[in-house]
Amino acid sequence: MDDDVPLILTLDDSGSSTSAPLDDLEREELPNENGGSYDVINDASSPAAGDCCAQQSSARHNWEMNYQEAAIYLQEGENNDKFFTHPKNAKALAAYLFAHNHLFYLMELSTALLLLLLSLCEAPAVPMLRLGIFVHATLELFALIVVVFELSMKMRWLGFQTFIRHKRTMVKTCVLFVQFIEAIVVLVRQTSHVRITRALRCIFLVDCRYCGAVRRNLRQIFQSLPPFIDILLLLLFFMVIFAILGFYLFSPNHSDPYFNTLENSLVNLFVLLTTSNFPDVMMPSYARNPWSCVFFIVYLSIELYFIMNLLLAVVFDTFNDIEKRKFKSLLLHKRTAIQHAYRLLITKQRPSGISFKHFEGLLRFYKPRMCARERYLTFKALNQSNTPLVSLKDFYNFYEVVGLKWKAKRNREHWFDDLPRTAFLIFKGINILVKSRVFQYTMYTVVAVNGIWILVETFMLQGGNFFSRNVPWSYIVFLTIYGVELLLKTTGLGPVEYLSSGWNLFDFSVTLFAFLGLMALAFNMEPFYFIVVLRPLQLLRLFKLKKRYRNVLDTMFELFPRMASLGLTLLIFYYCFAIVGMEFFAGVVYPNCCNTSTVADSYRWVNHTVGNKTVVEEGYYYLNNFDNILNSFVTLFELTVVNDWYIIMEGVTSQTTHWSRLYFMIFYIVTMVVMTIIVAFILDAFVFRMNYTRKNQDSEEDNGIVLEKEISKEEVAGIIELYKRSSAATETAQLQKIVLQMDKYGQMSMLFLGRRSRTKSDLSMKMYEEEIQEWYEEHSRKEESQTPLQEPASASNSSLKPLSLRQRSQTVI
Amino acid sequence: MDDDVPLILTLDDSGSSTSAPLDDLEREELPNENGGSYDVINDASSPAAGDCCAQQSSARHNWEMNYQEAAIYLQEGENNDKFFTHPKNAKALAAYLFAHNHLFYLMELSTALLLLLLSLCEAPAVPMLRLGIFVHATLELFALIVVVFELSMKMRWLGFQTFIRHKRTMVKTCVLFVQFIEAIVVLVRQTSHVRITRALRCIFLVDCRYCGAVRRNLRQIFQSLPPFIDILLLLLFFMVIFAILGFYLFSPNHSDPYFNTLENSLVNLFVLLTTSNFPDVMMPSYARNPWSCVFFIVYLSIELYFIMNLLLAVVFDTFNDIEKRKFKSLLLHKRTAIQHAYRLLITKQRPSGISFKHFEGLLRFYKPRMCARERYLTFKALNQSNTPLVSLKDFYNFYEVVGLKWKAKRNREHWFDDLPRTAFLIFKGINILVKSRVFQYTMYTVVAVNGIWILVETFMLQGGNFFSRNVPWSYIVFLTIYGVELLLKTTGLGPVEYLSSGWNLFDFSVTLFAFLGLMALAFNMEPFYFIVVLRPLQLLRLFKLKKRYRNVLDTMFELFPRMASLGLTLLIFYYCFAIVGMEFFAGVVYPNCCNTSTVADSYRWVNHTVGNKTVVEEGYYYLNNFDNILNSFVTLFELTVVNDWYIIMEGVTSQTTHWSRLYFMIFYIVTMVVMTIIVAFILDAFVFRMNYTRKNQDSEEDNGIVLEKEISKEEVAGIIELYKRSSAATETAQLQKIVLQMDKYGQMSMLFLGRRSRTKSDLSMKMYEEEIQEWYEEHSRKEESQTPLQEPASASNSSLKPLSLRQRSQTVI
Repeated sequence: MDDDVPLILTLDDSGSSTSAPLDDLEREELPNENGGSYDVINDASSPAAGDCCAQQSSARHNWEMNYQEAAIYLQEGENNDKFFTHPKNAKALAAYLFAHNHLFYLMELSTALLLLLLSLCEAPAVPMLRLGIFVHATLELFALIVVVFELSMKMRWLGFQTFIRHKRTMVKTCVLFVQFIEAIVVLVRQTSHVRITRALRCIFLVDCRYCGAVRRNLRQIFQSLPPFIDILLLLLFFMVIFAILGFYLFSPNHSDPYFNTLENSLVNLFVLLTTSNFPDVMMPSYARNPWSCVFFIVYLSIELYFIMNLLLAVVFDTFNDIEKRKFKSLLLHKRTAIQHAYRLLITKQRPSGISFKHFEGLLRFYKPRMCARERYLTFKALNQSNTPLVSLKDFYNFYEVVGLKWKAKRNREHWFDDLPRTAFLIFKGINILVKSRVFQYTMYTVVAVNGIWILVETFMLQGGNFFSRNVPWSYIVFLTIYGVELLLKTTGLGPVEYLSSGWNLFDFSVTLFAFLGLMALAFNMEPFYFIVVLRPLQLLRLFKLKKRYRNVLDTMFELFPRMASLGLTLLIFYYCFAIVGMEFFAGVVYPNCCNTSTVADSYRWVNHTVGNKTVVEEGYYYLNNFDNILNSFVTLFELTVVNDWYIIMEGVTSQTTHWSRLYFMIFYIVTMVVMTIIVAFILDAFVFRMNYTRKNQDSEEDNGIVLEKEISKEEVAGIIELYKRSSAATETAQLQKIVLQMDKYGQMSMLFLGRRSRTKSDLSMKMYEEEIQEWYEEHSRKEESQTPLQEPASASNSSLKPLSLRQRSQTVI
Repeated sequence: MDDDVPLILTLDDSGSSTSAPLDDLEREELPNENGGSYDVINDASSPAAGDCCAQQSSARHNWEMNYQEAAIYLQEGENNDKFFTHPKNAKALAAYLFAHNHLFYLMELSTALLLLLLSLCEAPAVPMLRLGIFVHATLELFALIVVVFELSMKMRWLGFQTFIRHKRTMVKTCVLFVQFIEAIVVLVRQTSHVRITRALRCIFLVDCRYCGAVRRNLRQIFQSLPPFIDILLLLLFFMVIFAILGFYLFSPNHSDPYFNTLENSLVNLFVLLTTSNFPDVMMPSYARNPWSCVFFIVYLSIELYFIMNLLLAVVFDTFNDIEKRKFKSLLLHKRTAIQHAYRLLITKQRPSGISFKHFEGLLRFYKPRMCARERYLTFKALNQSNTPLVSLKDFYNFYEVVGLKWKAKRNREHWFDDLPRTAFLIFKGINILVKSRVFQYTMYTVVAVNGIWILVETFMLQGGNFFSRNVPWSYIVFLTIYGVELLLKTTGLGPVEYLSSGWNLFDFSVTLFAFLGLMALAFNMEPFYFIVVLRPLQLLRLFKLKKRYRNVLDTMFELFPRMASLGLTLLIFYYCFAIVGMEFFAGVVYPNCCNTSTVADSYRWVNHTVGNKTVVEEGYYYLNNFDNILNSFVTLFELTVVNDWYIIMEGVTSQTTHWSRLYFMIFYIVTMVVMTIIVAFILDAFVFRMNYTRKNQDSEEDNGIVLEKEISKEEVAGIIELYKRSSAATETAQLQKIVLQMDKYGQMSMLFLGRRSRTKSDLSMKMYEEEIQEWYEEHSRKEESQTPLQEPASASNSSLKPLSLRQRSQTVI
């Protein structure tokens, strides 16, 4: 409902005349509940007249508003939403709440996916999925209308002013407009026209809330572009120089088709940059004069081995720098969000901190699914002082603490501690066995033997259909061993502990798959045969043996989400290029299409008879076409891998114009950017992790952040009292269960463990420890100096009015 | 002639009875010259009887020995030679001096090169260079005998004990022995046998003093190997799993030649790792079932895009770490060397520092070609205190200061300041013109226009012989402009200042070449036509315009020496593989050789007649052979570039056994290691430099280290006096010239500037500033604690005896 302190001071003179006194009272009203003193009220503006009860309910209502706004601030901080999109009034708030929940997000996502998937059905469609023009155009119109609805909600929330200032949204609106017109045109004409604009559909996906990672990647790619382009120009510059040189040197040789014109010379040197035509492009001149290889060696050394690596270095350096700056700005943004939220949660009487009552109110909005126990534990974890209030300094740790998952610390060590003596001894024995090194190494040996067995077995087979045979006995033996191991481990460790380790989970699923494979073999279920071939994956377990592999594989799993988002980013680029490719090149490549080009062989499909045998000569490259979106994706992947991409390029070029090469060259450069970013990312993540490990060699074995908090019976009773007063029945019942449990074990207090996995942000916090303090200081200095200048700009649109007077009294904090 | 202090204390009891007293006296004798007091002598052992004159000359002789040993220590520190190879006695010292000068180094280098170049003449020889067996075997024997001589000198210097403990030398000796026997066998049998051991010849090159950088690279490569191999195993592991999977999935398809056996499956997936057979290997299965592309996409994503990048990351990380550790150990080694040298140069009377006399003596041995003025300036630059002695703390900067090149600071700003008024004004005008931005940008425009002109001109030509035509007028126009620019710049700035900038030097040489090209065109000198095509290089000047390019190009030049040494390292690997390749595969590949293999087309050479035209179908790949060492090098370069390397592999394999693939695969892995190191190196260097620039944004414009020192007339007079006493005529004359110059300009003192370019070590010093202090402390702590334990081990072989007693007196320092 309000924003910064100085902001309110400016508003204060004008608009807060009606609601302010009431609101002010409400602030002051709270001490009643908490046993505070009344006299504090009087130092503020005069108390409004009116019914005490009405006041109280209004106060509660206003507090709820405050909780909600604070929660929104914290969400904005977490999602890195800028504060100028903060809802400004009750109507905007309603729209904000409507547009910020998972149902809405899912709608956004599914609409975007629907639009993207339409390309499967629009001409040129995947044969099996072809739909009539009327059908897919209607579907498209429907999806677009949903997008319009989403955008109107957004406009309601942001207000028109902010809406048109928000670039991404504006671009989306324009694209939407164009798509709309085109969809209607298609519906009216009942025929598809050239619709390259379909490539822009992915903007709907990018704008989804769930695709935040993709947006970040795209931003990072665009930020890395300027230095990238600089080096690219250097690369192209040398290419041009060498093209001119090559033309002068080799065009007198008439048997050399690669350098006969300047254009050919340029194109072939571009392809040579990707090494795709390497020894071939050299061969005619090399056959004539052996020394001409010097030209190519120098070219490749400069371009491929030097400048291309420089490209990587520059991108890596920029990437590093951006990562750090991003982390810094995110950290400061979160800090500001926390400050905003804090100001909304303190009372006039207790300006030094947030009481549990208000903290609980905040969490109700911020994490609705958190239970009462967890809320209190979070509060306790935050509160470093001995007072019942959380100070701003403690509150700064909000994001680190709120993610913890709390569990009562078990008193018993194993799951079978409560069982009768005999059973306990048996399970204890199994437990010791399973945890012993001997058992582990025996299993490794078995896995290794199994691996060699599979290799030898496969080597003995020489082609043919393997799946109609009987089940080999070795398979049964090994599977039995794995089964017994699984059983022992599950019973020895308890299912929960067993499955809490990623490696065990992996073992479990592979064994399960192997078992399913056995079933498939035994019952001759052909479609499942692929499961059998997954057997060798068991061997991956061997990599647990060495620390470096564990490190690498852990890094791999940590990287996975980010890698996936990078992959998605690449797919979005693929989509754009696939649409453009389909519009221009659909159907141009077919068997025996390119007999006039230099790559005719690769497109040949001849069915000729030699003696009495039919010999099929197949070049297969006609399969790499743009005939539908799936084919296009495969073709683009082949272009990404780069090898022999010029065959695809030349094939298409020979059937269209030589301007088509531009498409392929641009695609190469785009994938080069993305791939370089991927390499830079892996490099950065790995080096960062290694440096971190080197810096913290002692705490190497810990897995995640762990916090321990104790709650006494009295505390629980106090909270129950609080909840009872606000008549929250479920919470009360929940808490009473804890009391019962304490009584059962005769304890006066209970220990809880909060746990969460370590994120990149935690690592960064530790790595930049020293710098962070500097950033904070610099930030607060800047804020202090900028406040009078900056705030008035956003004053008009960043506050819900009612709380303005209270704010003035808080200026002293 | 001695080492650490405690060391001497142990020796002291036994072997120093004869020479010690004399030596001791000599120490004490010095104060005479410097005006010190005699009484200090008496606290040492009793003065020896004898003629005062004889004593003095003996003292001088002993001082000379000390200077020399200190110089040797400093050299060892600089070259990172371990101190246990320090010469132990006069005989060893003589051998050391013999083996440590440029003549000897050159002999080493030329012998090694001779041995390597012999491969050009030995069968299979380069046709033009073929020599008789008798001739080349004799040459080889001669070279080997020279190596024996070198080794015996080394043995004399090191002593037998140290010699056989020195690994590299022992390996060299063994290789030498084998080569000797083989050379004799060849001479006796008069026929070459299979001599794979020739591949070991490069060890002679690696061991050369001048190839220190190569040795460092090799060490770094070997140090990076363990993590590299780990990841490589992961890579191969996945390859095996996918090979089994691929075999199961695709071998039922009989039209798929890539997966019909497990071996084929493995080989093709290995090749796929290099992407070299990419779309082809997928095509048969893709044609049958479009979904089979998933197998290849997953394989490439895991292997190529993830693990290969991980490989780079791991190597980069290790590389980083090694670089830092190397820098640290080198720094500490230098420090120790300085300490050793320092102890040899101080006198008993003045234990707190080195006087100029002794410093001058040291420099006479350390840098014989340094002139007297420079010696004194170096001394002054080192001396931070006001005393006439250089303390140990100051002496630690020895390596940073000794490399400075000293020049008298010019009083005049321009070279033409002394000219008459009119001339001065003209030149001043030119100077201002040349330095103006307008002039610079005009020249850039001219270069750009020239570039476009060349491009358009070349584009208009359509093949043919361009060099028999007349000289185009545009060429003359542009060359005239460049000529005028060059003239203006040279006159405006003065030739010395003009050529001191790298960019100007580049301009100058390109213009000169262009001029030579014009000559060649004008006089129709065919062999020079290649110069004409260098014209576009002028365009490189455009890259001065942007800061990032200047940065990149500067980095490029800084990296150049290291890149060259990495290239040389690669060439050494090439040599080994070329020899092995020649021994096994010489002559196996020829036109139409591989008709049974899948790559027959690439080796085809058909000359058939269609109608009345002769059509040559040429696959050219038979040119990629191992028929002589030059061809082998080109073939290996093609293998390094990787693209289509499997055609070469399959060609050779089809003519030999399928074990030949091992050779190619191993070569691929070796080049992968070296290439990864090169990438890591470029990355590291670039990122390091960028970080450095970011950290020192203020001092960005400086080029190198600059120091300023003033010398007064009295100081010069003092030094002259000193030199006169030791009757060094040339030095005296040199110094008197300075006095004359001062008199001429009527100055009482003269300013000198010391300048050197910044090295990586300087950058590292600045980057690790904080850590360095820690290292020093840790180092000195370790030394203190280890001295009693460590030193006795090297006590027996690291001291020339005479100075032992003096050392005891220095323990107090």
